[in-house]
Amino acid sequence: MASSKPDLNIGLIGTGFMGKTHAFGFSTAPKVFDLPRNIVLHTVADVTQDSATQAAGALGFARATDDWRKLIADPDIDVIDITTPNALHKEMALAAIAAGKHVYCEKPLAPCASDALEMARAAEAAGVKTQVGFNYLCNPMLRLARAMIEAGELGDIRGYRGIHAEDYMADAATPFSFRHDPVGGGALADIGSHALATAEMLLGPITEVMGDCVTMIGTRPDGRGGTRAVEVDDVGRAFLRFANGAQGSVEGNWIATGRQMQHDFEIYGTKGALAFSQQRFNELHFYDGCDAPGRRGFRRIEAAPEHPPYGRFCVAPGHQIGFNDLKAIEVAGYVDAIAGDGAEPFGFCAGHRIQTLVETIQTSSRHRAWKSV
Amino acid sequence: MASSKPDLNIGLIGTGFMGKTHAFGFSTAPKVFDLPRNIVLHTVADVTQDSATQAAGALGFARATDDWRKLIADPDIDVIDITTPNALHKEMALAAIAAGKHVYCEKPLAPCASDALEMARAAEAAGVKTQVGFNYLCNPMLRLARAMIEAGELGDIRGYRGIHAEDYMADAATPFSFRHDPVGGGALADIGSHALATAEMLLGPITEVMGDCVTMIGTRPDGRGGTRAVEVDDVGRAFLRFANGAQGSVEGNWIATGRQMQHDFEIYGTKGALAFSQQRFNELHFYDGCDAPGRRGFRRIEAAPEHPPYGRFCVAPGHQIGFNDLKAIEVAGYVDAIAGDGAEPFGFCAGHRIQTLVETIQTSSRHRAWKSV
Amino acid sequence: MASSKPDLNIGLIGTGFMGKTHAFGFSTAPKVFDLPRNIVLHTVADVTQDSATQAAGALGFARATDDWRKLIADPDIDVIDITTPNALHKEMALAAIAAGKHVYCEKPLAPCASDALEMARAAEAAGVKTQVGFNYLCNPMLRLARAMIEAGELGDIRGYRGIHAEDYMADAATPFSFRHDPVGGGALADIGSHALATAEMLLGPITEVMGDCVTMIGTRPDGRGGTRAVEVDDVGRAFLRFANGAQGSVEGNWIATGRQMQHDFEIYGTKGALAFSQQRFNELHFYDGCDAPGRRGFRRIEAAPEHPPYGRFCVAPGHQIGFNDLKAIEVAGYVDAIAGDGAEPFGFCAGHRIQTLVETIQTSSRHRAWKSV
Amino acid sequence: MASSKPDLNIGLIGTGFMGKTHAFGFSTAPKVFDLPRNIVLHTVADVTQDSATQAAGALGFARATDDWRKLIADPDIDVIDITTPNALHKEMALAAIAAGKHVYCEKPLAPCASDALEMARAAEAAGVKTQVGFNYLCNPMLRLARAMIEAGELGDIRGYRGIHAEDYMADAATPFSFRHDPVGGGALADIGSHALATAEMLLGPITEVMGDCVTMIGTRPDGRGGTRAVEVDDVGRAFLRFANGAQGSVEGNWIATGRQMQHDFEIYGTKGALAFSQQRFNELHFYDGCDAPGRRGFRRIEAAPEHPPYGRFCVAPGHQIGFNDLKAIEVAGYVDAIAGDGAEPFGFCAGHRIQTLVETIQTSSRHRAWKSV
Repeated sequence: MASSKPDLNIGLIGTGFMGKTHAFGFSTAPKVFDLPRNIVLHTVADVTQDSATQAAGALGFARATDDWRKLIADPDIDVIDITTPNALHKEMALAAIAAGKHVYCEKPLAPCASDALEMARAAEAAGVKTQVGFNYLCNPMLRLARAMIEAGELGDIRGYRGIHAEDYMADAATPFSFRHDPVGGGALADIGSHALATAEMLLGPITEVMGDCVTMIGTRPDGRGGTRAVEVDDVGRAFLRFANGAQGSVEGNWIATGRQMQHDFEIYGTKGALAFSQQRFNELHFYDGCDAPGRRGFRRIEAAPEHPPYGRFCVAPGHQIGFNDLKAIEVAGYVDAIAGDGAEPFGFCAGHRIQTLVETIQTSSRHRAWKSV
Repeated sequence: MASSKPDLNIGLIGTGFMGKTHAFGFSTAPKVFDLPRNIVLHTVADVTQDSATQAAGALGFARATDDWRKLIADPDIDVIDITTPNALHKEMALAAIAAGKHVYCEKPLAPCASDALEMARAAEAAGVKTQVGFNYLCNPMLRLARAMIEAGELGDIRGYRGIHAEDYMADAATPFSFRHDPVGGGALADIGSHALATAEMLLGPITEVMGDCVTMIGTRPDGRGGTRAVEVDDVGRAFLRFANGAQGSVEGNWIATGRQMQHDFEIYGTKGALAFSQQRFNELHFYDGCDAPGRRGFRRIEAAPEHPPYGRFCVAPGHQIGFNDLKAIEVAGYVDAIAGDGAEPFGFCAGHRIQTLVETIQTSSRHRAWKSV
Repeated sequence: MASSKPDLNIGLIGTGFMGKTHAFGFSTAPKVFDLPRNIVLHTVADVTQDSATQAAGALGFARATDDWRKLIADPDIDVIDITTPNALHKEMALAAIAAGKHVYCEKPLAPCASDALEMARAAEAAGVKTQVGFNYLCNPMLRLARAMIEAGELGDIRGYRGIHAEDYMADAATPFSFRHDPVGGGALADIGSHALATAEMLLGPITEVMGDCVTMIGTRPDGRGGTRAVEVDDVGRAFLRFANGAQGSVEGNWIATGRQMQHDFEIYGTKGALAFSQQRFNELHFYDGCDAPGRRGFRRIEAAPEHPPYGRFCVAPGHQIGFNDLKAIEVAGYVDAIAGDGAEPFGFCAGHRIQTLVETIQTSSRHRAWKSV
Repeated sequence: MASSKPDLNIGLIGTGFMGKTHAFGFSTAPKVFDLPRNIVLHTVADVTQDSATQAAGALGFARATDDWRKLIADPDIDVIDITTPNALHKEMALAAIAAGKHVYCEKPLAPCASDALEMARAAEAAGVKTQVGFNYLCNPMLRLARAMIEAGELGDIRGYRGIHAEDYMADAATPFSFRHDPVGGGALADIGSHALATAEMLLGPITEVMGDCVTMIGTRPDGRGGTRAVEVDDVGRAFLRFANGAQGSVEGNWIATGRQMQHDFEIYGTKGALAFSQQRFNELHFYDGCDAPGRRGFRRIEAAPEHPPYGRFCVAPGHQIGFNDLKAIEVAGYVDAIAGDGAEPFGFCAGHRIQTLVETIQTSSRHRAWKSV
C-alpha cells in the first residue's frame, strides 16, 4: 500500500558480509516494527559497477554505482551506511557528514580513538544522527539483563566477567590481513570491543583498566610466498573497575580453538547473578538469591514476548530470533532516532568510547600499568 | 535494480501469527537466496478492508481486500498463501486450485485426512505446485542430520525418540477454542504433527503405530461464563515402527508446564547417535562410535556455513539463524519448485501423509490396538 | 573406640561388581551416618576358597568361605547379602530366610514375579528385614523431588516421562549371556526396572500399562563359535497410567549407542515441573510456575546440605556425592530398618512389585493390549 | 582376613569438615585400591577428650586424645594427619617431622610461603613423606586432561582460563573469621589456590603473574556486636605466563553469588581444546580440531574405566565418583609414596609452590606490577 510515512532513502557502501547483513536489517525492520519512516533501498556502491549492480539486484537496491562519492553527493539519499573495510570508515563518514547525511557505520568506528572522536564531533556539529553497528547489544536478553540490573533484581553489582572468543585466527597459516594491521587491528579491537560494549551497556562506565595484550602467532604468511611479522594481540584481556563500584575482567581472543561465538558474561550482585552466552543467545540464566533455601539455582529464561522486542518477531515464546534479526532491531532503533528527538542507541560517541577503551587497554598492556579511562 | 526475473505475485489470506511469519519469509528469502523468481507481495486479504489495509502497509503488500474470493480470482496472482484458521484451509485451497493457482497452506493442511487427500488430488490434477508450512523441517541442522543418516555415519538406524511439547494449554483456565474441536484438534494434531514430520523426514516411512491419546483437562471455559467438555487429547503419543527396521516413540504434548519448544529427537544407530532440541536449534549433538576409546562423547556441532543453507544467512559460523529464517528457507524451496521441474519440498501429499499419521494414531488409541499406516 | 552398639554381622555372597559396591557401602555407611548397629564384615563367600580369601582381604572381611550354605548356617551372622547372578537369588534368599537371617539382595530380586512373591512372603512370615538394591532411589535429589511433589510444589501431577538407557548391549558382537535368558532377561527387566522404580517412588502406583518390547539384535554369538537366538527385548517401553491420575511413559533400552547412564525423568504438574538426569545426578531442574512472568525457567538446583542426607557426606554444597555413596545411603536405611520397628526402605515386597510391573509390560507387549497392574 | 601387609598407623588431628573427609578417604582407599600398607586408624586428637572420643567412635579410630603432642609422640603412629585450622599447621607439622613422622596436611600448607618453605625443608631433611590435600587434582578427568596434553592431542598449548568461584562469603553479614586474617586469608589463598594448582598440574610452571586482589566487603561483623575491617581479597585474579609459552588468567572468588563449585578451566591448543567444570566433574569436554569439517564440536566425555582410577570405584561407565572418592585417590597416592621410593603426588614442596604463587599474585596486586615467580 502507498505509505503515508516519509521516505528514508538509504545509500549503502560495501556489499560484503556486513553489507549483506545491513541489507537484511533494512529489509526486515519495516516488516517487524512499525517504523516512523518508509525505508527505501536507494543506491548501493561497490568497487566496480558490475559488482554494485549485482549486489543491487541481490539485496534489493534500486540503483548501483561504483563511486561512493557520487552516492554521498546524491541529494535524495538520507542515510549513508558504511560497511567497507575499517580503514575507509573515517574518510567516508566525514564526507557523508559534510554532506549533511545521517551516517550508519559498521564497527569499529575507526582504527584509532582520535579518528573516532573527530568523526563523533563532526557528526555532533552537523546535527546528524549516527549509529555504529554493535549488534549483540540489541539482543532482547541483554536488554532484559540491563532491565533486571536497573530494577535492582541482582542487588548491588559486585563482579563482572566478560569474554568474546572465537577461533578464526587460530590457524597460523591464515594470512596476514587488514585485521593484523598495527593500527586498529588485533583481537581486542576486533572482538574484545564487543565484550567491552556489552560490559558498559550492562554495568555502566569502566573507570580503570589493566591490560594484557599478547601476540601468540608472531608471523603469518604475507600472501606472496613470504611471511610478515604480526604485532597485534591474539588475546587481549583486562582487569576492570566500574564507576558503580564493581570490578571484573574482560577478554578478547581470536585463537580460541573450537569457539565460534563465545560472547559470554557473568554478573554477580549482592542478591542474585546472571550468566549469558551468545552461543545460546535466546537464553538468560538468572540466579535469584531470594528463592527458598534448597530451591535455588540458575534458571534458564527463554526468550519470549515478555522480553521486548522479541514479540515483534514472534508472538509465541521459544521460537528464537537469529543474528540477522539483531540487525533489524539495530536498524529500527536508528530509524526511531532519526525520526525523533531521542538519542541514538549507539552513536559515534559510543563508538568512540569503545575505541578509547580498547586503546587504553592496549596502552596499559604496553606500559604494564593500570590506566584510568 | 530492475530484475530480469519473471515476477511471482503472492496473494496472502490471513494476517495473524502465521500470516506475519509468511510475510517475513517472502521478504527475507529473495535477499538471502538467489531465487529464480522476483517475488511481488501483490495483495493481502483479511476479514475487513481496514484490517487488510493495515496489514498491507505493515507487511509490505501493494493491495488489500476483504474478499478472499476476489484475491483468488485475480489473474495476476500466481500463488495463494493461506494462513487462516484450519477449518478454512480446504475451501480456500480448492478454490485456488480451481483457479489454477499454486497454493501455499499453513499446517495442518486440513482438519481430517480425507479432506487433505481431496486437496492433494485436486492439486495434482491441476498441475499446480503446493507447499504446507512445516518450518522446523527447514532447519540446516535437520538437513545435516538427514545427510549424516543417509551417508551411513550412524550405521543402521535402530531407535528413535521424538517429542514436541509446549505448555500453551497447561492452564485449565485457557478457554475452549478451535484447537479443541473434535475434528482436527488436540495436541497430537497441533504439535505432535511436527514431531511426526521430523521423524519421517529423518528415518523415512512409519509403518505401524500404537497410539495413546489422553485428555487431562476435561472441561474448559466456553468464553460465555460456562464450561465446555473437551474431547481432544492434551497428550498424544505413540509407539512406532519404521520401514527401515527401526522402532521408536513419539509424543505431542501441549500441557508440559515450563516447556516452550521441546521439539526434540534422539536417533540411535549401530555406529553412532544424534540428539537435537529445538530449544537450541542451531546445534546438533553427534556421538561417533568410531572415536577413540576414552575419547567418545556427544559433540555439540554448531550451525556453520558447512551446513547449507546456513551460509546464505551468514558467512561466519556460530551467529545463528532464527525461527523466521526457517520460513525464508521454506519459501525459497517452494519458489524453486514452482520455477523448476522438481518436486515440492513438502507439498499437499506430504501434508496429507502427516494428517494420516495423526489420525491413525488417534484411531489406534481409541481402539487400544496397533494399526498399520 | 570400643563401640557400645550391638554388632551387626554381615555375610556377603558374591564378590563381583555389585559385591564390591556393597562392601563399599558397608564400609562407608558407618563413617557417614550414626548407625544404630556396629557393622562387622564377618564372612565373604565366593566360588572358590582362593577367590573368597582374596576378596576378604581386599574388601575387609574377617573370614572367607567357598560354601555359601555354611555362611548362611553360621549363627553369628545377622545379615545375608546376596550379590550373585540373578538365577541364584531365590535359592540363597529362601535358605537365609529359613535360617532366620535378614536378607539384602541385589536387584532383580528374582527372574520372575512369582519367585519374588514367594521370597517376599517367606520373609514376611519369618519376620526378617529385607532390602533390594535399587540404589538410584537413594539419591538425595530424588528424595528432594518426592518431597517437592508431596508438598504440592508442582501442583497436581499430570505427566511423567521416564527412561533408563545405556549402550552396553549395542554391539551385536557382544555374546549371549544370562542377561539374554528368556526368563528374567532383557533391557526392560535389567534397567527399565530402575525407571519403573523411580516412577513409582515419585508418583505412586502405576495402575495400567501398554507395553512394547522389541528385539533388535536377533542373534548373538554363543561364545562357542556359533550363534544363539535372542528372544528378550533390547528396548522395552510402556505407556503408563498412575493411581494419582497422571499418565506417562517409560523406556528401558540397552542398545542406546553413546548413552552410559540415561536414567532420566521429567514430571509435569499444574504448577511446576521437574527434570532430572542420572548423567548429572547431583542436580535437579525445577520449573516454578509461580515465578514472575518473564523470569520463569528451569532452574538447576545443585545438591547441598539442604537435601538430606547429602550433608552427611559433605557439609558444603556443590561437592557432589558418587555412585558408591548412594549404596552407603541404601545400607544406612536398611540398618535403621533392622534396628528399629519401621518399614524397610525397599524390601522384598517392593522388589516383587517391580518384577510384577516388568512382567505385566512384557505380557502387554506380547498380547498387544493394555493390562492392569 | 589377617593381612600380611605392614600396618600404617594413622594419627589424625582435627575432626571438622576436613577431618571427616580424611577419615572417609582412609576408610575407602583400602577397599578401592590394592594398597601396599594396611591402614590402621590408630588415634584421633581433638580439643577435648569428649569430642575426640566421640569422633573416634564416629570415624572408626581406635583411640582418642585431647593432646595432639602426645599423639605425635606416640611411637606406634606412622602418619600424622593435620586437618586443624590453618594457623596451627606449621607448629604441628614441624613437631611431627621432628618426631620422624610422615605428615599429611590439609591445604593451605601454611599461612605464608616462608613458613611453608621451612616445613618443606624440614621434611626433606628428615626424609619423611608429605602430602598436602588438594583433592580436586585427583579427579580422573583432570588426569585425562593432563594425559591428553602430554600426548599432544591438543597440539601446542596457547591459552588457559582457570577459575574457582563460590559464594560462601557473598553475604556481608557473614562474620569475620580466620579466613579473613591478613596473613593467609582471602579468596585467592583459600580457593584461588585450587585454580592455581590445577593450572600448574595441567600446563606446568607459571613464570610471571600480574595480580588484582580486591576487597569488596570492607567490614564484617566481629561476632561481638561490632564490626571489623577486612583487608583480604574477596576476588583475587591474575594474568599468567607459563614456561611452555602459553598465557592465560586465573581467578579466585568467594562472593560469586549462586556459585557453589565453579572450579572451571578452558585450555586452547593449536589442534584442540578442553573445557571442564567441577560442577560436573565426571565430564571433560574435548574439541578435536582433527574431526571432519562440519562435524566438529566440543564432545562430552563421561568418566569411565578408560580413565584411571575411575575403574577402581566402578567397573561400568557413567556411574560417577563423588568428592569423597577424590580423597580416597589422594590417600592411595600418598600411601604408595610412603611405601615406595617414588615422589609424593603433592608434597610439601608442591604446597609451598602454591603458597608462593598466591603471595606473588598478592604482591603483584599491591605493587600494581607484573612479578616473576
